[in-house]
Amino acid sequence: MTKIIDFQTDPSRYRHWRVTYDGAVASLAMDVDENGGLFEGYALKLNSYDLGVDIELADVVQRMRFEHPEVRTVVIRSGKERVFCAGANIKMLASASHAHKVNFCKFTNETRNAYEAAGADSGQKYICAVKGACAGGGYELAIACDYIMLTDDGSSAVSLPEMPLLAVLPGTGGITRVTDKRKVRRDLADVFCSTEEGVRGRRAKDWRLVDEIVPNSKFDAVVAERARQFAAASAHKVSTPGVTLTPLQRRIGEDGSLAYSLVDVAVDRAARRATITLAGPGGEAPASIAALHADGAQTHLLRLARELDDAILHLRLNEEQVGLWIFRSQGDPARVVAHERALLDHPDDWFASEILLYWKRVLKRIDVTSRSLCALVEHGSCFAGVLAELLFAVDRSFMMSGAFEGDNRPPAAITLGASNFGNYPMGNGLTRLQTRFLGTPETVTALAGLQGQALLAETAEKQGLVTYAPDDVDWADAVRLFLEERASFSPDALTGMEANLRFAGPETMETRIFGRLTAWQNWIFQRPNAVGENGALKRYGSGVRGDFNMQRV
Amino acid sequence: MTKIIDFQTDPSRYRHWRVTYDGAVASLAMDVDENGGLFEGYALKLNSYDLGVDIELADVVQRMRFEHPEVRTVVIRSGKERVFCAGANIKMLASASHAHKVNFCKFTNETRNAYEAAGADSGQKYICAVKGACAGGGYELAIACDYIMLTDDGSSAVSLPEMPLLAVLPGTGGITRVTDKRKVRRDLADVFCSTEEGVRGRRAKDWRLVDEIVPNSKFDAVVAERARQFAAASAHKVSTPGVTLTPLQRRIGEDGSLAYSLVDVAVDRAARRATITLAGPGGEAPASIAALHADGAQTHLLRLARELDDAILHLRLNEEQVGLWIFRSQGDPARVVAHERALLDHPDDWFASEILLYWKRVLKRIDVTSRSLCALVEHGSCFAGVLAELLFAVDRSFMMSGAFEGDNRPPAAITLGASNFGNYPMGNGLTRLQTRFLGTPETVTALAGLQGQALLAETAEKQGLVTYAPDDVDWADAVRLFLEERASFSPDALTGMEANLRFAGPETMETRIFGRLTAWQNWIFQRPNAVGENGALKRYGSGVRGDFNMQRV
Repeated sequence: MTKIIDFQTDPSRYRHWRVTYDGAVASLAMDVDENGGLFEGYALKLNSYDLGVDIELADVVQRMRFEHPEVRTVVIRSGKERVFCAGANIKMLASASHAHKVNFCKFTNETRNAYEAAGADSGQKYICAVKGACAGGGYELAIACDYIMLTDDGSSAVSLPEMPLLAVLPGTGGITRVTDKRKVRRDLADVFCSTEEGVRGRRAKDWRLVDEIVPNSKFDAVVAERARQFAAASAHKVSTPGVTLTPLQRRIGEDGSLAYSLVDVAVDRAARRATITLAGPGGEAPASIAALHADGAQTHLLRLARELDDAILHLRLNEEQVGLWIFRSQGDPARVVAHERALLDHPDDWFASEILLYWKRVLKRIDVTSRSLCALVEHGSCFAGVLAELLFAVDRSFMMSGAFEGDNRPPAAITLGASNFGNYPMGNGLTRLQTRFLGTPETVTALAGLQGQALLAETAEKQGLVTYAPDDVDWADAVRLFLEERASFSPDALTGMEANLRFAGPETMETRIFGRLTAWQNWIFQRPNAVGENGALKRYGSGVRGDFNMQRV
Repeated sequence: MTKIIDFQTDPSRYRHWRVTYDGAVASLAMDVDENGGLFEGYALKLNSYDLGVDIELADVVQRMRFEHPEVRTVVIRSGKERVFCAGANIKMLASASHAHKVNFCKFTNETRNAYEAAGADSGQKYICAVKGACAGGGYELAIACDYIMLTDDGSSAVSLPEMPLLAVLPGTGGITRVTDKRKVRRDLADVFCSTEEGVRGRRAKDWRLVDEIVPNSKFDAVVAERARQFAAASAHKVSTPGVTLTPLQRRIGEDGSLAYSLVDVAVDRAARRATITLAGPGGEAPASIAALHADGAQTHLLRLARELDDAILHLRLNEEQVGLWIFRSQGDPARVVAHERALLDHPDDWFASEILLYWKRVLKRIDVTSRSLCALVEHGSCFAGVLAELLFAVDRSFMMSGAFEGDNRPPAAITLGASNFGNYPMGNGLTRLQTRFLGTPETVTALAGLQGQALLAETAEKQGLVTYAPDDVDWADAVRLFLEERASFSPDALTGMEANLRFAGPETMETRIFGRLTAWQNWIFQRPNAVGENGALKRYGSGVRGDFNMQRV
């Protein structure tokens, strides 16, 4: 799997999904092209999916929010006759590297989280209309929706057959949503997750696995009725047209470097690190909501978010050896603040709101990225407001203190804004500042009083906003030593350490999926009982069951 | 590692700890006998430890609560000159099987949790008095204490060097307590966990890693002063003498079976299952607190808890292939209720209270046991009050419904008591009933109204207290099919599934340690970067660093 995985697509290129719009209701049909797999060696039969199918789903979910803000209800259904979705493709999983499997699951999880949050964030509720087998990843698609409808045709069933069939766990949040979202009684959940054929009809409803069962003859009509009802009940009103997400400008270099319009990624494969530099706005902030809408996808903070998001996904999947990401920025902090202010001042405008919500998702993607993250707050940088969040998302940060010989850029400063105190919560439900200062909540209060001020290195270090603030004499060595040391550690140990250090405080379904469930799945994905030559995943389809070492760990 | 690991010990047999009592203050000195390892092949140098060292620690912590209820402060210190504790022995870890490593960490975690809870539960606070290197598991010993004192001698330091040194994580809750108990700022935590030599003096205090630093010349005096202060401030008053925990009766059979006085464990190694049968009280409940104290360690519920606890630990470590545990009980439910009532009615009596608290710990040990758990509620059984908790700790349960031919025992019944609604919270802070009925909290309210009634199968099934209630015709097949099916699944997939299904609802530091942290550690314990021939753990002490695959997962 050495070809470049591209996360950019648009509806004209979809091979696996059909989307149609009818006023406030959108219909999203999964109709996977079995010959359209991202890699060779497997056929995507029975609406099974690989990363390519999910990239299209993520794209349509994203476009729904920007291009079709009028949508209130999205109905996900199958475009095939007798199957809803067979889940992630097993042959793909069995042949994929450990790292690809893990990153595939991470991305599909992020996509599920994105449409699960669309109801509360944007008033777009998802209905899953299940006809036919809805197995494994298929049920995980469904359970991330707001409402699951199952036809009562005597055979259609929902199931999580991974444990009995493949000796792995459902990899996309299924178990966590069974216990914490659907709140299924644990012994029934145990039966459900141990039963290859799954659960159908009345029992599926009684066990809280679906919300409604409908006689097969009335299924389409009742689904349409529910979609209308949900749309009518939505308080979310939009009167301006959507904003088209135009193609990104991007150039990929031979050396792995990425050049976008506002994001530059320099990749040093030998040193195993990437330097991601974000450009602040070159122009004035939109003077009005009308101006913001007129700017559309070109408005600075949306363009920056899209480019950064793409860079993150590209690096995660295509540069697996690059274990250390360094965030930099250059630009005018006052302009970043002004551009963000133009959004924050209009909480009732759907487009302004969607840009902020998108940043929330991009920042969360950074939080769960298993790379070591650091930030360099240099002279001329613009870590203000939303960009300052990056400083609290990274594992370490360095800030230039005092004058640097020959450097006449404006002194390094950090500017906090109102958004740092609420607009971009982490998966744990707290702001990054609340998480950072869990032991000293009074620091957050004190920092709130410093909003809008350009905080220089001495203050930033004293207030705990950065890890180190070296001066001209020490800067180069301090940064170099850290980068070299970090690159020398075991990537696995770093991944485990960072996953545990980044999420102090409360847990949510989201942190539990990325933390507990993912960690157990990763463990199982290493165990011979699953992935060994005689393991269940490798033997799937051979007619021979897995050969298990029966020792309990 | 095929010899039987015995969890029973007493102070006369300790090789690694010295405990002295002085009124309300106990002193616990760690002085590991380097030739006293549980297995061959390693020396326990520098106060490093293996499971045997921790079995003694668990014993002393337990005896402190029953035999020395007058103790208010326990001071843990080193019995050696220049080292506090070097952590878990690396050669032991490097040579241990994966299953042993994981179960070793689980037991040490349970021991840390036990003394961490002793303050809130029993008014016994732990002070850790650190002189010399306090590394890895040594710091994890310290951070589970209520108060950490560090001598400021210019060299004594606390550290978690596992990641940089061994390419693994601290395995006993260290990282979680750094973020969630000590609430160390995440970038400082990252520095701390990446620094082999650790942190000393003022910085250790500033970073919240210790509570107090003391000049070396005054260290012993200040520690003694703090111990007296904490003891004097304790509201916990005890006027009756302790209860000696007399040796357990236990016979271990060649086939792995265990026979205690009240607990019988039948082991079927071929079928990979153990049947654990608990006997209800044969006599009347103690008529008074004086009678309870007179019964001492022989009182039914304490004896039963101790025997069950020992059986659990024995099976976990010594019967790793036995992946399915079946809980049964036989006895008079009314007597179980009466014996428990004799404890519940005296919340101010330290001994009654300690027996209930011990059951809380035993039940939690069951919750985190990575074996499939089921319960059979048969005629003649006594799943009442505390024993009914077992039904809500297991993954599945079967209850006999109606008359069974030739069986004239009293009909199977479940009796809930007040204790099921609060005395035995799980690690998530909820009762097992609250966790079970997370989706229908009204069920818990309804069940509270049924306290004291003998609930027969029909009612128990309807109320969701058991999974299945087969009658005479179906019972044998239903149970057999389940047992056979369960034994056929991959043990790893079961472990992951059960760990995710058992703990719905809120997370606490405790669930996070056993869930998220443990799962990441288990994953890393499988990765070649740590445990491969060229991995850091295997190469430790060779003078050659680990050779890492640099791919990030």
